[in-house]
Amino acid sequence: MTYCVGMLLDKGLVMAADTRTNAGVDNVGKFKKLYTWEFPGDRVFVLLTAGNLAVTQAVVSILSEQINDPPDRGLTLKKCSTMFQAAHVLGDAVREVRKADGDYLTSNGESFAVSFIFGGQIGKERPRLFNIYAAGNFIEATPDTPFFQIGEHKYGKPILDRVARSEMELGEAAKMVLLSFDSTLRSNLSVGLPIDLLTYETDTLKVEHTKRIGPDDPYFKMLSTEWSKALRTAFANIEALDI
Amino acid sequence: MTYCVGMLLDKGLVMAADTRTNAGVDNVGKFKKLYTWEFPGDRVFVLLTAGNLAVTQAVVSILSEQINDPPDRGLTLKKCSTMFQAAHVLGDAVREVRKADGDYLTSNGESFAVSFIFGGQIGKERPRLFNIYAAGNFIEATPDTPFFQIGEHKYGKPILDRVARSEMELGEAAKMVLLSFDSTLRSNLSVGLPIDLLTYETDTLKVEHTKRIGPDDPYFKMLSTEWSKALRTAFANIEALDI
Repeated sequence: MTYCVGMLLDKGLVMAADTRTNAGVDNVGKFKKLYTWEFPGDRVFVLLTAGNLAVTQAVVSILSEQINDPPDRGLTLKKCSTMFQAAHVLGDAVREVRKADGDYLTSNGESFAVSFIFGGQIGKERPRLFNIYAAGNFIEATPDTPFFQIGEHKYGKPILDRVARSEMELGEAAKMVLLSFDSTLRSNLSVGLPIDLLTYETDTLKVEHTKRIGPDDPYFKMLSTEWSKALRTAFANIEALDI
Repeated sequence: MTYCVGMLLDKGLVMAADTRTNAGVDNVGKFKKLYTWEFPGDRVFVLLTAGNLAVTQAVVSILSEQINDPPDRGLTLKKCSTMFQAAHVLGDAVREVRKADGDYLTSNGESFAVSFIFGGQIGKERPRLFNIYAAGNFIEATPDTPFFQIGEHKYGKPILDRVARSEMELGEAAKMVLLSFDSTLRSNLSVGLPIDLLTYETDTLKVEHTKRIGPDDPYFKMLSTEWSKALRTAFANIEALDI
């Protein structure tokens, strides 16, 4: 399983993914699920992936290879002029992998289950954030719901539902996203540390702040401990039901 | 969808179920999913149901009818002498419904998806709590994991994972269970108020405390508001990530 969150803020993007993969509880691995493409001063893309690892890795390889070897109609992450076009480039790559591998997966009883959170900024366009489906189509985040989750999303959703707002500072949003991971990690073994966290500040057009958060990360440890303590205190301070 | 929680405490049981049923978002109904059988001074049973409503209602009807019209081998909720036997009576009722309806459901493309939380106390035996599956088999709660959830369980699990302990007072456990519902209600529209809540005190051998909690319930409103406030304060009090 996997847990990824992407959040679109007025001030930028916060993107995070865990690194655990598993095909059964006795086949657990560590794979990166956060990818970036950076053309400093021009454009930045961040991709979070969930689902069939062979498919998501193939999509990432296609996107990377295309940059130097564009497909016939010529649109690549490097050449597209809006994030909407970039999301289409990604969707097309998903469809290309399905065309190549889909039938083989089906005949092997496996599903083409993948999903992506894709954010970034191109030139003077504002940063944008998309949730791309296995069919290659997608939706875009808006201020009403400024975040997307993929993978094991339920345990970590309540904190986002309560706290997420487009106006948050990047550091506050990163704190919220990490708390959402903390709840997920506690309740589902198939989501595991380390977490890859990226914060992107609007108009910098470069990848400046990435962080791999392992079990010994002092901030994450503090966050986890303080949150537990605060929840227990909050719980204790509310009057019990009078039976 | 449905959300039900049952908790086994040293001091008794806390059992709660929502009342929303839906077959698609445009076909939403209100049905009770918490049932009790009470033989004051002798035994008390509480059942929470999730899944195919036709199946769960059939199971409940069988259990009730058997009491006055016992099946051949004679074991009913009224006559069994332990909660383990009572769980078997329930499992047998599930299997009886599958035998009668299972093939018809399958040929109609529907699944025999049901699950139950079943708690109670018989005579001098301590209260016990079971999670009964669609196959009619079951597991029993222990102090290590003193609660069961069925239905839409993920949103409300983090609070239980953090706070649930067998030693809690009934009123504290009821508060925790209602907070678990609060998180679920916020994140999933298919779980809805009112909530049926039952608290059972060990050795009373009667159903004394049941409560239907609707949107105007003052305790639930207070709980929901105070918890939101406390979470936001707790969140604000933790240092943001320094980027």
